[in-house]
Amino acid sequence: MANRHLVAIGGRDAGISAALRARELEPGVDVTVVVADAYPNFSICGIPYHLSGDVPDWRDLAHRTVADLQATGMRLALDTRAERIDVAEQRVLLTSAGGQQSWLSYDELVVGTGAVPTRSRIGGFTGPDALGPADGVHVLHTMGDTFALAGDLAQQPETALIVGAGYVGLEMAEALTARGITVTQVQRGPQVLSTLDEPLGALVRDELTAHGVEVVTGTTITAIARARASTGGRVTVTGRRDGTPFTRTVDVVLVVVGVRPDTDLLVSAGAVTGAGGAVVVDEAMRTGLPHVYAAGDCVTTHHRLLGVTYLPLGTTAHKQGKVAGTNAVGGSARFTGSVGTQVVKVFDLVAARTGLRHDEAARAGFHPATTQTTADDHKAYYPGAHRIAIRVTGDTRDSRLLGAQLVGRRGSEIAKRVDTYATALYAGMTVPDLDALDLSYTPPLGSPWDAVQMAGHAWTREHHQPAPQPAGALVTT
Amino acid sequence: MANRHLVAIGGRDAGISAALRARELEPGVDVTVVVADAYPNFSICGIPYHLSGDVPDWRDLAHRTVADLQATGMRLALDTRAERIDVAEQRVLLTSAGGQQSWLSYDELVVGTGAVPTRSRIGGFTGPDALGPADGVHVLHTMGDTFALAGDLAQQPETALIVGAGYVGLEMAEALTARGITVTQVQRGPQVLSTLDEPLGALVRDELTAHGVEVVTGTTITAIARARASTGGRVTVTGRRDGTPFTRTVDVVLVVVGVRPDTDLLVSAGAVTGAGGAVVVDEAMRTGLPHVYAAGDCVTTHHRLLGVTYLPLGTTAHKQGKVAGTNAVGGSARFTGSVGTQVVKVFDLVAARTGLRHDEAARAGFHPATTQTTADDHKAYYPGAHRIAIRVTGDTRDSRLLGAQLVGRRGSEIAKRVDTYATALYAGMTVPDLDALDLSYTPPLGSPWDAVQMAGHAWTREHHQPAPQPAGALVTT
Repeated sequence: MANRHLVAIGGRDAGISAALRARELEPGVDVTVVVADAYPNFSICGIPYHLSGDVPDWRDLAHRTVADLQATGMRLALDTRAERIDVAEQRVLLTSAGGQQSWLSYDELVVGTGAVPTRSRIGGFTGPDALGPADGVHVLHTMGDTFALAGDLAQQPETALIVGAGYVGLEMAEALTARGITVTQVQRGPQVLSTLDEPLGALVRDELTAHGVEVVTGTTITAIARARASTGGRVTVTGRRDGTPFTRTVDVVLVVVGVRPDTDLLVSAGAVTGAGGAVVVDEAMRTGLPHVYAAGDCVTTHHRLLGVTYLPLGTTAHKQGKVAGTNAVGGSARFTGSVGTQVVKVFDLVAARTGLRHDEAARAGFHPATTQTTADDHKAYYPGAHRIAIRVTGDTRDSRLLGAQLVGRRGSEIAKRVDTYATALYAGMTVPDLDALDLSYTPPLGSPWDAVQMAGHAWTREHHQPAPQPAGALVTT
Repeated sequence: MANRHLVAIGGRDAGISAALRARELEPGVDVTVVVADAYPNFSICGIPYHLSGDVPDWRDLAHRTVADLQATGMRLALDTRAERIDVAEQRVLLTSAGGQQSWLSYDELVVGTGAVPTRSRIGGFTGPDALGPADGVHVLHTMGDTFALAGDLAQQPETALIVGAGYVGLEMAEALTARGITVTQVQRGPQVLSTLDEPLGALVRDELTAHGVEVVTGTTITAIARARASTGGRVTVTGRRDGTPFTRTVDVVLVVVGVRPDTDLLVSAGAVTGAGGAVVVDEAMRTGLPHVYAAGDCVTTHHRLLGVTYLPLGTTAHKQGKVAGTNAVGGSARFTGSVGTQVVKVFDLVAARTGLRHDEAARAGFHPATTQTTADDHKAYYPGAHRIAIRVTGDTRDSRLLGAQLVGRRGSEIAKRVDTYATALYAGMTVPDLDALDLSYTPPLGSPWDAVQMAGHAWTREHHQPAPQPAGALVTT
């Protein structure tokens, strides 16, 4: 009898995680991963660091090489597109690089098609005559995109305009600045890094400006066109800023305004979409189609505070892929939910968040209150101390921790401090509960009450409603 | 009617925390803090960094100045010793610097007398003719001790011997090395930093050796004596090492072999002692004596895994002091327990632990299994990545997380990574549960599965016993 056959579609975090997990748990299961390009298991989050020059060889961005992956016993179908899922017959129609079509049968299928860059309504950027890499206009989502932009950068452009100021936009502003390029960063909304509340986003903006990036907020780009010969650049970008015209002519344009789930394959097979247009899955990563699981940026995300939402993150894709791979070989794992933890380095600053921003919490029906404070990363008397700006959001009804945001200097252990909040969120702790955590302390690396707890103290002083006390008690905690 | 009067005995973490909390909650309560020396609220953990030269002015070691403390409305009785508690009359007998005795009445009393250095049985170190600072022989627990040692160091000694290789011993080995002094570190047991399992202690030993510290383990010091004139040093230290004699003659000797709780005041008032000879308190920090609370290094510690133990730590003293101060003014707080989180910087290495070591867990009746692994602090392709050695201990019966130990380079966010484990311990998570934590990731600062989780994966692969599955399931997580 032939071995059971697991097919994973997608060579990124979700598909590879599913395949690795299946091979780890059940060496008797055959596993095939269908990869649209030749670059399975590449660290997409690492692309800005290749383009900056920090990672000179793009091959180093591979979490695992093709040989590493094959050594686990999985098969890789590279440069192969999955065109259609035949759910009834349990098979997938594939097109190889040479254009040949063939059916691949599966016992269980895990779909990790991921997301694709949002094509915002910018004239000259969408449609059949859209400008592209050959014109100096780029998106950044695949290794192919990376090679195209790297080729342009090798021509030593002098100026660049980045549309978007989210994680990738900010990392690319740093990367291009590191290469000596003068960068203009354009954001439609009023602040950069809108995943943070405005006062912390302002700190990130200051960091960009301090490194020479021209930050232009409140500005909608409406068109991209080839520049006239006289303008000293290749591409002219036009838009509106507070009702007045905005124009720049630059050598390179990068549009990084977010992603949307790539769901065509699953939807055409009958899958249902929900939040953010992503495919609905249950906590076992089942799509509802028999023998078809899905994971990663193409599916909805269970958020422990928000319920079902769409929040594409690599960390989540790894977790969901592992769950899907486990269940596809007969195990029983479930995805227990995201709390939206994210961190980004912007020049010498690190900005992190977990849980909900104040306004997100309000929209979700909580009764949020937020306190901002600053605390030293370690005892101020020891050399090299830096202040961390921290915002803590809790619910005024029960003091439940809802979220935390931190901005501080690189080296201040921001990334792992947000993890303490993330773990507390997972455990459903209240803000005053943070006091009970036994966190580490030595003067070069912390304080007797860690910054995480000092921010909690500030919130508790302002917003905690003590429980009713028996008669005679003066105060409560 | 006069205000109620809270008296706190002890000017360190516990006493000051209690006093601050009482003033914060109840501005109508009078607060007096009795301080044995002139240095209230000094960061004792910071002393090695003054002696190293990192903190040139000892005054900077104050968490708060006398003026800061007085500004909260508390009174400070400096250079004043508490001689006796009269529980029935609710008063304390004090002796001032000038030798005058007086009674101070209280409504509520918080005792934070702390701990005193252990005087191990070393000839010439205890008894009436013991050598002391004037002879180049030091302990290190108060600002007075600090000034004495600083005075000796100002004479530019060339050699020093440190008895003990715990936290303070290691920090002082670094501090004295930084001042150009040749250091010999002697430890009775087989390894330095015995709060870690041996394989990680060995990494710390290597770091000491790499920086020129002579590390001598398995050696018991039996006597300290003034050196003969011809030996080129002030103090001769003798002992036994594996049955053979050990002798060194050095300029300075520092004995840092731990502390014992300073309980005389409470015991003479009728308090009961327990673990480690410390005063027994309940979770509200009540001693059982009416209107008498105690907190910090003089009392037993509730440990969430071990139950009642003795574990003197500054972080715990802050927490317990806050609880005592809250309850002393009529509130209802409780100390919810330590998990034994500790961290130390030793030259360029950081070593941290939380929960139980393998052998501690076994002694406490758990069924521990421990897995050691290494993981990158961030994606290896990004410059500056370092490996972190991590040991995870869990219970083989239910996979409950019991402890974690980490050793890695400074800058690898070791201190705040141990906090994720500490928070997970607080929440009672299992090792496989760590997988569910939504931890932050960006290539310069982490990995899609953080090092914390990768160490959990290694443990889970080796030791996790899956729950029984329904028939037909192939595997489980």
